[in-house]
Amino acid sequence: MPLDENRLFPLEGTARGLARALYDQISGLPIISPHGHTDPRWFAENNAFTDAAQLFVTPDHYVFRMLFSQGIDLDALGVPRADGRAEVTDGRAIWRVFAQNFHLLRGTPSWLWLTQAFADVFGIHERLTAANADALYDRINDSLAKPEFRPRALFERFNIEALATTESALDDLRWHQMIRDSGWKGRVITAYRPDAIVDPEFAGFTQNLAALGDLTGEDTMTWAGYLAAHRARRAFFIRHGATSSDHGHPTARTENLSSTDAEALFDIVKTGRATPEQADAFRGQMLTEMARMSVDDGLVLQIHAGSWRNHNPGVLAKFGRDKGFDIPTRTDFVRNLKPLLDAFGTDTRLSIIVFMLDETTLSRELAPLAGVYPALKLGPPWWFFDSPEGMRRFRELTTETAGFYNTVGFNDDTRAFCSIPARHDVARRVDCAFLATLVTTGRLDEDEAYEVAHDLAYRLAKQAYRL
Amino acid sequence: MPLDENRLFPLEGTARGLARALYDQISGLPIISPHGHTDPRWFAENNAFTDAAQLFVTPDHYVFRMLFSQGIDLDALGVPRADGRAEVTDGRAIWRVFAQNFHLLRGTPSWLWLTQAFADVFGIHERLTAANADALYDRINDSLAKPEFRPRALFERFNIEALATTESALDDLRWHQMIRDSGWKGRVITAYRPDAIVDPEFAGFTQNLAALGDLTGEDTMTWAGYLAAHRARRAFFIRHGATSSDHGHPTARTENLSSTDAEALFDIVKTGRATPEQADAFRGQMLTEMARMSVDDGLVLQIHAGSWRNHNPGVLAKFGRDKGFDIPTRTDFVRNLKPLLDAFGTDTRLSIIVFMLDETTLSRELAPLAGVYPALKLGPPWWFFDSPEGMRRFRELTTETAGFYNTVGFNDDTRAFCSIPARHDVARRVDCAFLATLVTTGRLDEDEAYEVAHDLAYRLAKQAYRL
Amino acid sequence: MPLDENRLFPLEGTARGLARALYDQISGLPIISPHGHTDPRWFAENNAFTDAAQLFVTPDHYVFRMLFSQGIDLDALGVPRADGRAEVTDGRAIWRVFAQNFHLLRGTPSWLWLTQAFADVFGIHERLTAANADALYDRINDSLAKPEFRPRALFERFNIEALATTESALDDLRWHQMIRDSGWKGRVITAYRPDAIVDPEFAGFTQNLAALGDLTGEDTMTWAGYLAAHRARRAFFIRHGATSSDHGHPTARTENLSSTDAEALFDIVKTGRATPEQADAFRGQMLTEMARMSVDDGLVLQIHAGSWRNHNPGVLAKFGRDKGFDIPTRTDFVRNLKPLLDAFGTDTRLSIIVFMLDETTLSRELAPLAGVYPALKLGPPWWFFDSPEGMRRFRELTTETAGFYNTVGFNDDTRAFCSIPARHDVARRVDCAFLATLVTTGRLDEDEAYEVAHDLAYRLAKQAYRL
Repeated sequence: MPLDENRLFPLEGTARGLARALYDQISGLPIISPHGHTDPRWFAENNAFTDAAQLFVTPDHYVFRMLFSQGIDLDALGVPRADGRAEVTDGRAIWRVFAQNFHLLRGTPSWLWLTQAFADVFGIHERLTAANADALYDRINDSLAKPEFRPRALFERFNIEALATTESALDDLRWHQMIRDSGWKGRVITAYRPDAIVDPEFAGFTQNLAALGDLTGEDTMTWAGYLAAHRARRAFFIRHGATSSDHGHPTARTENLSSTDAEALFDIVKTGRATPEQADAFRGQMLTEMARMSVDDGLVLQIHAGSWRNHNPGVLAKFGRDKGFDIPTRTDFVRNLKPLLDAFGTDTRLSIIVFMLDETTLSRELAPLAGVYPALKLGPPWWFFDSPEGMRRFRELTTETAGFYNTVGFNDDTRAFCSIPARHDVARRVDCAFLATLVTTGRLDEDEAYEVAHDLAYRLAKQAYRL
Repeated sequence: MPLDENRLFPLEGTARGLARALYDQISGLPIISPHGHTDPRWFAENNAFTDAAQLFVTPDHYVFRMLFSQGIDLDALGVPRADGRAEVTDGRAIWRVFAQNFHLLRGTPSWLWLTQAFADVFGIHERLTAANADALYDRINDSLAKPEFRPRALFERFNIEALATTESALDDLRWHQMIRDSGWKGRVITAYRPDAIVDPEFAGFTQNLAALGDLTGEDTMTWAGYLAAHRARRAFFIRHGATSSDHGHPTARTENLSSTDAEALFDIVKTGRATPEQADAFRGQMLTEMARMSVDDGLVLQIHAGSWRNHNPGVLAKFGRDKGFDIPTRTDFVRNLKPLLDAFGTDTRLSIIVFMLDETTLSRELAPLAGVYPALKLGPPWWFFDSPEGMRRFRELTTETAGFYNTVGFNDDTRAFCSIPARHDVARRVDCAFLATLVTTGRLDEDEAYEVAHDLAYRLAKQAYRL
Repeated sequence: MPLDENRLFPLEGTARGLARALYDQISGLPIISPHGHTDPRWFAENNAFTDAAQLFVTPDHYVFRMLFSQGIDLDALGVPRADGRAEVTDGRAIWRVFAQNFHLLRGTPSWLWLTQAFADVFGIHERLTAANADALYDRINDSLAKPEFRPRALFERFNIEALATTESALDDLRWHQMIRDSGWKGRVITAYRPDAIVDPEFAGFTQNLAALGDLTGEDTMTWAGYLAAHRARRAFFIRHGATSSDHGHPTARTENLSSTDAEALFDIVKTGRATPEQADAFRGQMLTEMARMSVDDGLVLQIHAGSWRNHNPGVLAKFGRDKGFDIPTRTDFVRNLKPLLDAFGTDTRLSIIVFMLDETTLSRELAPLAGVYPALKLGPPWWFFDSPEGMRRFRELTTETAGFYNTVGFNDDTRAFCSIPARHDVARRVDCAFLATLVTTGRLDEDEAYEVAHDLAYRLAKQAYRL
């Protein structure tokens, strides 16, 4: 069926009309995508995508985790094993399994993103079913072969003003360099993700420290050299466009140890023999160190907290990391962020963006914190909350205490390139619906709503990420 | 006043119309009641109920706890003392207290269930008040004397396709046997509830172990014999129709100890001298043992977690267990279910249904877990959440991550027989309202909504409970 | 823009009409303000307020915390330093900063309260902007100079039937005495706030104990004398109109120690050398002691739990306490209130009102507790939840389990005198919206809704606080 042009707007007529008017004003604004996981190689090489299954099914954990939950083997969906090799590589066969089970996505944001991507990117206005699976597979693949479906062409068609990818601190950023060297005008930038060298429990941590030394020429076996190496890599990333660093920690713990204690902790950590508690403390200390560096070099500090990664050991052993078994956990920000906030929370030079997977913290902890600390901003609802209900609750739970201006617009946070316009569209619609509801219940003036709609869709992301 | 035929539907006209259309399609479907606490003796003996107060007030903890909270003595409501004897036995006197205080139920699901049961079962369309208390008491009692108000007649009139009761693992299931022997076609089945023999803190635990040995001929003083006795009792319950076991634990803790460690723990537990920690570990271990048996015998494993039972010692001493002083507590599923899920979470032969009393776990823990583990399904909102707002939040908080097909339809979980149709009706209406809202906001196609409405009202419960 | 006369009502026409009708019936009822922080000196001396900035900006932590969060210095808003002296005292300059940043309050209850106070109290129907800042400043200040804007005149114009302030247990209540002596009919009463003498971590605790001894003639270095001194002060407060005590604790912890253990704990605490654990236990014990005294003297016991006060040490050092850095924390009521409830929870002579800053406890803990314990009532949503969304969630999360009659109407809890009518108006509107929604979705009869609306707006507060 065709997409409802008033989707996600309030039901009542006056509010719906206003939401529509607000949306019409901002729906054509360029996309600012300041945090995501697309592959810079796509834009560097600009080769055609070739397979609908590889584009929409195999790499999309939202899709394959739902099918797996209903008993469908990950192998049948072409998900690679831990060794990198997939048991099933026949795109059409994978697509058929996907099509037969598309109804499992009912009520989920994936249904909405896929429906919109099929329609807006590929002109497909039928719902995917077992019956039309082959025909739609062929239509998408035929499209992908055309020049206007190459990565750069889609980037331009999607009206993306800036797109940040995320690279390991040890990455050589070759694809970003290649994009710059190519003369293409698309703004694809990197972000500094140092998990591999700040998390003592990361696979290969000690080798990573050594590699960091090699890359920077610093003695990363000393605390001072290690910190200097970070500063060098951050500068390197900044030269490749980075305006932010990104930190995905199991908890929001921060520490602000004395130099002596930090050095002593590093001396244990660098041996690879840190206890879990020491590892956790070190990760926490490094958030504060990153904040200190940010005051100098201007990188925005992003903290993604609260995911228990790779919850099932059997799936981890067989298929490796990041296979949909990442489960949110209860998170405490009031106590855990305090060392960082004591040190830098009132420093107006700094911008710390916090993301959560525990909604209970929104009204109780995060909105009150962001509503008073100048350095702290609330990241948009992400992952399991990057959805109409998740976004609505986010606004309802945060706005009354933190307002709109302690939030930072939308992040798509995705590797599903074709879903980027749909994801931003969902966020813009939900925000317009929220604003229209405020106006029609007398909590905001209409002229203000137009201004806020523009801020949420465009200006705040640009400003918060210094783009 | 008469019941609103569009009750619980969205307010806006288009959405309301669609909700109505969806509901009209499914409102006549048979009731599947796969988890509840009605008394099988009613259906075995088929004697008439005799007293409106005994049917609607005295056994209904939702009603008497609310009246108690406003200072009305439990004695005045006919609630039996701990010794089983009630201070007040005059049904009319009890009913008058109830009628005088009916306004205390405003805004609660009890108001809705009672109003609908009075109307649909007894043809009473007035609101209960002090003024009409005697008249309504007489009308209900007069009805109860008629043949068409006998338990089996009501069962058939309620259009119940299958009704599960819950019996202790030590129960002789005589009433279930009597139902079967009677030739009556009503499908009343049992469920295996082994709290008395898996919870070391259950009153009379060691005697219960001995009784289990007597019943099964197994040596329940050995770990192997104890497990064999469980298997024997499960088989006995299965012969009386059971398709599920049910486990009401204070927390969601599970354990997966080695055989040696499990045996060592049992050797302590069987003495009746387990510490609280050992008792808790044993309960957790037994969930995993039950899962192991379920893989073999096919019983669906239900876990009801998170209630602090009998919170007030004074009321417990005077009136005994289960007198409305059961208070939900904060629950952790991500860590606590892990041992069980590590062992059996990806086993597609197994079906584990988890119920919660802590809504904060829905979007943070349970939907992400059920949205990826094939063995795990979400039980419906129950007890304090078996209500219009509770059900609405359940769908809003789980659907985007777990979809509809990792849920299992509705459970009424009640001993209030006359409220069963009303309870299922509330669930069907709330689900149709939710679906209509999805469609009218462009998140689901209309033809899909009809299919999902049918699934939620009927098919999913039947499938999940293997009925 | 003019205020929407249907603000905060449901959008759909029928429900909106009913909400309006309910509201029209109760909007003119007198205000019962049983808990707040206005200054009794205002009503004692009845001097004119003189400065819009001192009335609306400098003392309002909702306003200055939001502006601070966006990088505006507290000095620029006239907030006094820790030594009591403000860096900026020019009201017009402060007002201009406020006006320039008024947009930061979009979507917050402050926007609504200020807009309504400007309109209803001062006849200002424009939105405050940088452009009209000076003109509005002058208009407000001109008004304040008139007799009809004196505190007592406003009190009468606001139609306040009773207003409770909050005083330290050591206060001499001179202003309350002066009000009584003046012959003015306005009912301004005090409330007993003993933090300074029950919290061992309160600044000057041991001196406060000595002062308590001086005030009462009791030997406050003995447990018996200390308790007797409390009884004496409570009696003194009761003579000045108090009907309640108020306790702001970091957690909801209560204790019910034996006399011997309580005395031993006091003997440590009185030395000023209690450990944090001992201090916490003592605060918990004192709640139970206060309950014991309440059974005798009839004071309603209010517990405000869950705020981490003065979270930022830098701001605390520079500007002192209560500067917007109070952050809610996760709270446990089921375990923490148990000692108090074991002792007094079923005592119908006692009234305990619990307030929360952790919404997750509403449906999980507080509604189930209040829905069964006769002594326990739910305080209204306060502080970060004294807002349209906060109030709506409060009703949605509590009513189905605790009903309406275990709640106590509205508290404005404010020192912002001119916002009192607006705050009560918001609560009345949100409650009427909730009731209208219940009726139009078939969950309450219309005649009941009129009665409940009156109860929530007026009767319950009066009854719960024994006014």
